[in-house]
Formats: sequence, C-alpha cells, structure tokens
Amino acid sequence: MIETPYLLFLGDAPDALAAKVAQGIKDWRPGNCVGQFRMEGCKADMKLTDMTLAEAKAAGAKTLVIGVANRGGVISPAWKKVLIAALEEGFDIASGLHNLLRNEEDLVAVAKACGRTLHDVRIPSVQYPIATGVKRKGKRCLAVGTDCSVGKMYTALCMDKEMKERGLKSSFRATGQTGILITGDGVPLDAVIADFMAGSIEYLTPDNDDDHWDMIEGQGSLFHASYSGVTMALIHGGQPDALVLCHEPTREHMRGLPDYKLPSLQQVRDMAMGLASWVNPDVKVVGISVNTQHMSEEDARAYLAKVEEEMGLPATDPYRYGAGPLVDALAALG
Amino acid sequence: MIETPYLLFLGDAPDALAAKVAQGIKDWRPGNCVGQFRMEGCKADMKLTDMTLAEAKAAGAKTLVIGVANRGGVISPAWKKVLIAALEEGFDIASGLHNLLRNEEDLVAVAKACGRTLHDVRIPSVQYPIATGVKRKGKRCLAVGTDCSVGKMYTALCMDKEMKERGLKSSFRATGQTGILITGDGVPLDAVIADFMAGSIEYLTPDNDDDHWDMIEGQGSLFHASYSGVTMALIHGGQPDALVLCHEPTREHMRGLPDYKLPSLQQVRDMAMGLASWVNPDVKVVGISVNTQHMSEEDARAYLAKVEEEMGLPATDPYRYGAGPLVDALAALG
Repeated sequence: MIETPYLLFLGDAPDALAAKVAQGIKDWRPGNCVGQFRMEGCKADMKLTDMTLAEAKAAGAKTLVIGVANRGGVISPAWKKVLIAALEEGFDIASGLHNLLRNEEDLVAVAKACGRTLHDVRIPSVQYPIATGVKRKGKRCLAVGTDCSVGKMYTALCMDKEMKERGLKSSFRATGQTGILITGDGVPLDAVIADFMAGSIEYLTPDNDDDHWDMIEGQGSLFHASYSGVTMALIHGGQPDALVLCHEPTREHMRGLPDYKLPSLQQVRDMAMGLASWVNPDVKVVGISVNTQHMSEEDARAYLAKVEEEMGLPATDPYRYGAGPLVDALAALG
Repeated sequence: MIETPYLLFLGDAPDALAAKVAQGIKDWRPGNCVGQFRMEGCKADMKLTDMTLAEAKAAGAKTLVIGVANRGGVISPAWKKVLIAALEEGFDIASGLHNLLRNEEDLVAVAKACGRTLHDVRIPSVQYPIATGVKRKGKRCLAVGTDCSVGKMYTALCMDKEMKERGLKSSFRATGQTGILITGDGVPLDAVIADFMAGSIEYLTPDNDDDHWDMIEGQGSLFHASYSGVTMALIHGGQPDALVLCHEPTREHMRGLPDYKLPSLQQVRDMAMGLASWVNPDVKVVGISVNTQHMSEEDARAYLAKVEEEMGLPATDPYRYGAGPLVDALAALG
C-alpha cells in the first residue's frame, strides 16, 4: 500500500505522452495529488501547482510518484539527485519503471538511512496464495478485451467513477502498474509467478458487502498468443458476476502480433462465457466498451449503434460518452 | 542442461513413494543412470548398482540427482555431508526440491571452490522471451487434462518412447520438475513469470524437421481454477498440431478443489480446440489417454471401449496397454 497523497514527479519529460502515468493519476485520483515536481526542460504539465520538495512536504505529500517514463532504461544522474533529496526530505518513492529503484544502491542506502520505503510496483511485494476457487461474497465485474491495450483499465475506472457518483459501493481493482500507481494498491499480474496468478486475483478481490462491486482491471486477451494465460487467470481467479467486452475497432492486427487479426466480439463473448461460467454459473456479459479515440463523432456513434444491434447489449465509449449504460446494466443484475 | 549420466541419490527414503523422482528417471531414461547412492535406512531401491561416489565417478557419472523428497522441507545434516562430498568428488548436483540448493550457503561455497554447478530445476535458469505466435517448423503434440496429475507426463513419455521404437523422430519436452530431471532439460512452467509463460513454451519447442514431433508435457487443466492460466500458455505457446486428452475416471473432485467436479472429456475437447485452433487452424484431437491405475482389468477395458465409442477416437492407458493407438493416430495425420 502506497501512502497518499502524492507529489507527481514529471522529471524532464520530453513530451506529454512520456508523462502518461502522471496523467492517469491526475485524471482519476486528483484528490491524491498535492502538486507536481518538474525539472529543467520538462514539456509535460498536469496543471497542478509546481512545488519544491519542501513545499509539497508542508502541503502533506507522503510519496513522490515517478509519473514519467525514463529514457533508455536508465535513471539519470539528474533524476537521482531529486530522488535522493526526496528521501532525505521524508518522502517514500513509488515507481513503475522497468529498472527497479531497489537495484539502485545509492537509493537503497539513503532510503534505509532515512527510514523511507521504495515501492517498485512493477513486481509483487506479496507472496500470493494458490487460488482456492471458493465463492466469495460481494460482486465482481471484469473487463475482457479483444486485444491488449484496448481500454480495459479506463473502462473499469470509468465504471467505478460512475458507480461512486450514484452512491453505489465500488472499488477499482488494479492489475497493472499504472492502475496500481493510480490507486496506491493492486497486483502487478504480468510479473506474478505462474502458479500464483489466479490466487493473486482472489487476494485482490476478497469477500465484501453483498452489494459491493469490484471493478477488476483486465489484462491481455484470451486470443492474444503471448498473454492469454494472464487473462485466463483473471477469469478464474476473479470469478466475475459480470463481464464487459472491450474493443478498439480501428486496429488492423493484434498488438505485437502482425500475423493475427483481432477476434470478433462474438468470439470473445463465447470464449469468456465458457470459461467464466465454470467458476460462476451466473456470470453475464452486461455490455460493450468501445475505444473510439481514433474515430470521428459520426463514425463512433454509428459504430456503437451497430454493435448494440448485433450484440443485443448496451455499447458505449465510457471515456467519451460516460459509463452510464454499463452501470445501468450492472444495476439491472440486482 | 544437466550433464548425464546420473548417479541417483536416494538418501534415507522412508519408502518407495518418497523416491518417485528417481523411479521416473530409472523408468524413462535407464541409459542415463549409472547407479544409485543409498544411505543408512533407505527403503527405496531402483534395482541399480549401489555405488560409492568414487565408484560412480569412475563409471562416468557426471551429476548427482536428488531423486528423493526431503522430510520437513529441510536438507538434513546427513544429506548435506553426502552432497558436499559429491561436489568435492567432481559431481554437479541437480534437485527439484522446494528448498533450493542455491540457498544453502555451504553447498554454494563448496560448489564454487570446486567449479561445480548446482541445478535447481524448480526455478527457471533462462530469461525466456515474450511469445511471438509465429508458426514454427516441425510438429507438436500436447497432452491436455481434465485435471492436474491425471497422467499427462506419462502420456507424453509413453508416446515419445513408442515413436522412437518405431524409428520416428520425437522429443519429450518437459514442463515440470520431474520431467526436467528425467530428460536433463525443460521449462519449469509453474515457476515462470506470467508474461513469459507462452514464450517459454515457444523456446522449449523451436523449429525442427518437418517430420519431427515434440511431445509436450501438459500442466494443470483449462478447468482448474488455480492453474488454468498455465494450461492456456501451453496451448498458445505450444501451437499444437495434435492434442491428446488425459483423464482419470475415479477422481471425485478436482485436485485441491473439493467444490469442483471434473469436466467431461467433451468439455475439455471443445474448450481446448476452440483455443488451440486460434493459433493453429489444423489442430486435431487424436486420442484419449486414460489413467486406469485405480481400475481392475475388466473395468479398465470396459471404460476404454465406452470412451472410444462416445468420443469416436482411440482410447488407451498408454502406461498399462501401450501408446500404440495414440501414435497410430499421430502418424495418420501425415
């Protein structure tokens, strides 16, 4: 568990895209952000107050979150200087970078001397159990995709937000690095040891109130040859009551696999239902989430109407048009 | 790669079952075994020549393989004495124990001083790639089960043996600890990091001759809530041309999951075919392997006849009655 609130470290981000982790935190948990820390030459801006470490500390920030990708897989000397100063100032540091904070000897030494914690969210910090398959209390909704990176995290976050705005009980359950930094907690599923994948999802989504929904961030796709095992573990470990199918219609082949076309929504529905109903016979597909970011308003509206017609289910782009229809469908499950 | 031939270490095995790893090596790769090393009180016997370390060394043994489970998860002082002497004598040591050789400081120090290697086959020794999903040359057969521990390893080993006896090209591809110790190589799939599972199977089963078959050891089950993700990675990473369904008819619930009945052979066939055909449209289910060890001769024969009738496919217990029908079916694929 990462202590909040955060100071978002944007470093020397060469453009806005390099700071997309910070953007995600700012968009979804603005209340967790007291300000931003930018270095000379930083081209990203979260429209948060620029603060020194001391100012952020005084404003209550507990953790410096690295919200920017590093260049060339190296933590530069310029960054290092800020990170060490932050530890000395009393901040923990959280990072989703591939090169781990814990492998930087100077950071480890200073963190130890100052009694601070280095959070590498890319790798698990917990010894997860083996899954038991036992039914848990409360309800769970899982986003499953036709492909990787089609908007499963955004779908779960949008639905969680809509649920909370309606006064309904909901928790976003992060299964990837960005999601973990957004919420401060979660399972970095792609880095979990094979035998413990489903168990890590049971751990992430424990017993809860009967009317509480876990909105589980999906990963991979049942049809993605590289990562399908991860998706399978989410379905069996999550025991979802509801599935939302996620799709990006303009993609020409599966991400990273030029020889593979995307499966149809029908194929994903049938495969996911076949697998999920084994662990939860009451599971239902409640709707379709379409990522229309590369489509015009007219094309997006037409595509959503076509999908609704073909699938007989509500379809929306929850980020563009709101998650209302998906949350309505969840509520209708009772 | 573990150097052969082996001296099988049976330690102070309290009974034959405790030495089942040694038994597997002796049964399947007798040519790899120069002898056995037994301590005071050992109740297991592989019917190999009892040898001292020096005698085994003189007979050409390269690696001492721990073929026995240790009690209480501790490598006892009595074992330790033999293991250290083996390193000093010039043996490598290979182990599938949960507690790793590499965590024993004295073994590590002596191995280093003697220039010997400690093989912990329970954890990967390779940084596996991400799967590409690209079609490889050669053919692959995967054993998929209704449950864990129904005989998938024995099925693949029996088929590999039958193939070789017929002069056909075949390699047994191990995906578990016992299989790795039997062949000296393989992927400990249950210990691989999630993102690399399918890639590890592509790595294990690379391009080969057009008429060569990899007999891939299966793991878990698509219907086992704890381990289904591992099975999924085998199907997508293995891109099998042929599937053999494996079943144990007397089991009352899935292994470790008292709330779950076993799926039917039809359910496993349909689910496995749906997933496998995505990466290899030509995949076929070629036969059924039934583990009849808990059935009388009469019951076993009757059950096999019933399954053949119901499934329209050859069915055998390859360990009890030979793998002939399964290999015939592979050969018929051309």
